[in-house]
Amino acid sequence: MKIDLNCDMGESFGSWKMGMDEEMIKTISSANIAGGFHAGDPHVMRRTVEMATAHGVAVGIHCGFPDLVGFGRRYIHASPKEIQDDLIYQLGALREFARFYGMEVQHVKPHGALYMMAAESEELSRAIIEAIQKTDPGLILYCMEASVTYRLAKEMGQPVAAEFYADREYAADGKIVFTRSMEKELDPEAVARRVYRAVTEGKVATLDGKDIQVAVDTVCVHGDTPGAVRLAETIAAYLREHGVSIVSFQDRR
Amino acid sequence: MKIDLNCDMGESFGSWKMGMDEEMIKTISSANIAGGFHAGDPHVMRRTVEMATAHGVAVGIHCGFPDLVGFGRRYIHASPKEIQDDLIYQLGALREFARFYGMEVQHVKPHGALYMMAAESEELSRAIIEAIQKTDPGLILYCMEASVTYRLAKEMGQPVAAEFYADREYAADGKIVFTRSMEKELDPEAVARRVYRAVTEGKVATLDGKDIQVAVDTVCVHGDTPGAVRLAETIAAYLREHGVSIVSFQDRR
Amino acid sequence: MKIDLNCDMGESFGSWKMGMDEEMIKTISSANIAGGFHAGDPHVMRRTVEMATAHGVAVGIHCGFPDLVGFGRRYIHASPKEIQDDLIYQLGALREFARFYGMEVQHVKPHGALYMMAAESEELSRAIIEAIQKTDPGLILYCMEASVTYRLAKEMGQPVAAEFYADREYAADGKIVFTRSMEKELDPEAVARRVYRAVTEGKVATLDGKDIQVAVDTVCVHGDTPGAVRLAETIAAYLREHGVSIVSFQDRR
Amino acid sequence: MKIDLNCDMGESFGSWKMGMDEEMIKTISSANIAGGFHAGDPHVMRRTVEMATAHGVAVGIHCGFPDLVGFGRRYIHASPKEIQDDLIYQLGALREFARFYGMEVQHVKPHGALYMMAAESEELSRAIIEAIQKTDPGLILYCMEASVTYRLAKEMGQPVAAEFYADREYAADGKIVFTRSMEKELDPEAVARRVYRAVTEGKVATLDGKDIQVAVDTVCVHGDTPGAVRLAETIAAYLREHGVSIVSFQDRR
Repeated sequence: MKIDLNCDMGESFGSWKMGMDEEMIKTISSANIAGGFHAGDPHVMRRTVEMATAHGVAVGIHCGFPDLVGFGRRYIHASPKEIQDDLIYQLGALREFARFYGMEVQHVKPHGALYMMAAESEELSRAIIEAIQKTDPGLILYCMEASVTYRLAKEMGQPVAAEFYADREYAADGKIVFTRSMEKELDPEAVARRVYRAVTEGKVATLDGKDIQVAVDTVCVHGDTPGAVRLAETIAAYLREHGVSIVSFQDRR
Repeated sequence: MKIDLNCDMGESFGSWKMGMDEEMIKTISSANIAGGFHAGDPHVMRRTVEMATAHGVAVGIHCGFPDLVGFGRRYIHASPKEIQDDLIYQLGALREFARFYGMEVQHVKPHGALYMMAAESEELSRAIIEAIQKTDPGLILYCMEASVTYRLAKEMGQPVAAEFYADREYAADGKIVFTRSMEKELDPEAVARRVYRAVTEGKVATLDGKDIQVAVDTVCVHGDTPGAVRLAETIAAYLREHGVSIVSFQDRR
Repeated sequence: MKIDLNCDMGESFGSWKMGMDEEMIKTISSANIAGGFHAGDPHVMRRTVEMATAHGVAVGIHCGFPDLVGFGRRYIHASPKEIQDDLIYQLGALREFARFYGMEVQHVKPHGALYMMAAESEELSRAIIEAIQKTDPGLILYCMEASVTYRLAKEMGQPVAAEFYADREYAADGKIVFTRSMEKELDPEAVARRVYRAVTEGKVATLDGKDIQVAVDTVCVHGDTPGAVRLAETIAAYLREHGVSIVSFQDRR
Repeated sequence: MKIDLNCDMGESFGSWKMGMDEEMIKTISSANIAGGFHAGDPHVMRRTVEMATAHGVAVGIHCGFPDLVGFGRRYIHASPKEIQDDLIYQLGALREFARFYGMEVQHVKPHGALYMMAAESEELSRAIIEAIQKTDPGLILYCMEASVTYRLAKEMGQPVAAEFYADREYAADGKIVFTRSMEKELDPEAVARRVYRAVTEGKVATLDGKDIQVAVDTVCVHGDTPGAVRLAETIAAYLREHGVSIVSFQDRR
């Protein structure tokens, strides 16, 4: 059995460092690389792609709103066209760095506010999917199963990967509860078992204690919190020990 | 006989308009499209590529320093690596818009201060050429013949196009005198004859009245001055009337 | 009788020009100067303040969201604290240029999306008013009468100026209909009569043809449309001819 | 005996943290607060001013080039006018936050490339000094003694504070050798003794082992390196133990 493990990367900017990319890259199979609009810059992108290449990790564009100071976390009422153009721009930048290192781009993952707005909006999700289909229809769109984005991607025939958030709680409707982090409450082993169950059985316990079905094509781990590296390592080790290998979609072709 | 006619384009930004792209596009064969660092933005890039596609005009990246307020005209002591990364980023963005419209990128033209700094620097010119060779060695580098960039590109086997500036004066050493514009002094017909002579005989009269040899693979016209459209039209008409057709490099393949 | 005539100014950026400030400045009594976040830059601010000083025009900060590419017209879900800090920052920048030319800052006018969001939000309006009260409580807040901002300013004892939009239609609830411009429909004389009536009688005809009461402390004219200069001149001339002098609040002290 | 101890602060940006401001603020008497062009943002500025107020630390503007990605360390050939306008803008922003907390601005310190370029340029130093004299002539300009800036400020009657760099080596001409940091080589005690000697005797040993005279009005410590806090604390403790109190210029008035 195979699963993809993804992490947001390349979120440093100029002289400012963020995340523990050098450590996380050893554990994951896919890197979501910031496109320079909410985080990242050309130099950081290049080094991140270089690092991904060296570790055999697939790359995708982590495209966000043009809001550096807000880290792309503020909702911006951009038009579908603006969102499409911003996505194409950032995707192209990443693809060129990939080209520089002889790699292909594997996926697209909207970041922060864009991810959340698209999850609720047919118009924005359609804009994103259309932009992908017109430039490179083989790209895989990462999103939550409980989102308009996921449903629409399926309808429009776009390859899509349902994300399971290792370190977030789930509500009864399958949506992620972003305000509560599990890290402080649960030990890495417990998270690892939870991920394993989601990956192999497609089930997760919600905040109110019931089991729900959840589609899991890829598991997202975060790299910018203190215990992140150990959490990711524990999950990866647990999965492997129980017969689940961590492989990007690209490497299954 | 064939010649390429190029113009800087896509220099509008957000709500600010610059240039007369809609008019100039009808006359030229190659558009140098701003990459969003000194001018342009994702939306403007898309529309410019769309317009170029509609008019059968080839596109190239007009890559500049990340200095919007200075319009890329201020010398910035960026490292060769930074310049390389900025170039790859902007080139990729343009390539993705080209991809969106089913086009190829034809060329690379550094903008403003980057163009002038590279013209004098082996280190910067090498950084630019290496970036091109590692991503897409078939791209044509636009530069002045009287520059380190031109010499080095030739040495390194990089396709290169020597630019003739229709609306600028030349010094005895073949360098362009940027401080004086000819537009107010010379009528379009005179400029057209001068361009024709440069294109067909490879000769241009310098500021001090002597003839020098000049390589002319492409003629640059500017689009942001009042008389620009008529000047470009007059040049184009004159060339065609005298048997020189205006064709991009891409369309000669 | 006295009325203030205000206009958005200093919206050029770097090499990009916007508006007809040099013309408009001759007609108005108060200039809303862009703070560099949605438009304007330090150099443009300085020149605009210099010009205002030369023409005896009062200055105010036209503070917007940090969204240059969107011209501050896109709704951004910034926190009240972020909005406060952005306002203080831009206000201070303007005040220093005013200081440089021996002037005082007269007013604060939120721009675009910030103006509209605050108009509907008690939280944002409060943030704006508190920021003003903690830095310079004498500053006059420009806003629409039909807004939360106006009501709250009155409640909190903040000097406030109700804006009448010369070139916009009004709905029955006193709100401005931003999607329709009157300029193409009405001739300058008609607009001038409408402004005069609003100023002297406090009445305006709405889109559906009824008269409503409207508070008018200042009249806003726009400077970025073709007929703007003539429209402003016509309004100003009409007012003066009918005994209403155009005087900023500062000059009445 | 009294000496000022200054440190660069407020260099975080958006979600990116830099420096150990919360620790350093306890030890210093003057904070150089980034103006948002090379580092810092409105929110960071406000919090930094708030923190300085709480600790009785004087504030100054640390104004840099508009080059966030380059952290203001890249030489930009801006015009004297551009530099002046950028300075006034940043100074005003800080002054408004100071006003918000009932404080005064004490000083101006150019950052990074601007500091170094001005040190060598009469034209830039003059632009900076003139901008200060036209807005607030009482502001103290922080610079190196071995600089054009220092000499010119003295000539133009501008209050100036000669900076001694605690953690940098000196060359025989009194200039700082920026490429070598002493931190790894010397222990805090040794640096503290060196600072004490410079402060009390006006002497420092250069890289080639000779003593030179050095003017010391303020001592600069850096806050963005691992051992910075302990280094600053050791210097401050040593000075106090030996009868030198750490007091800003503002607090001596």
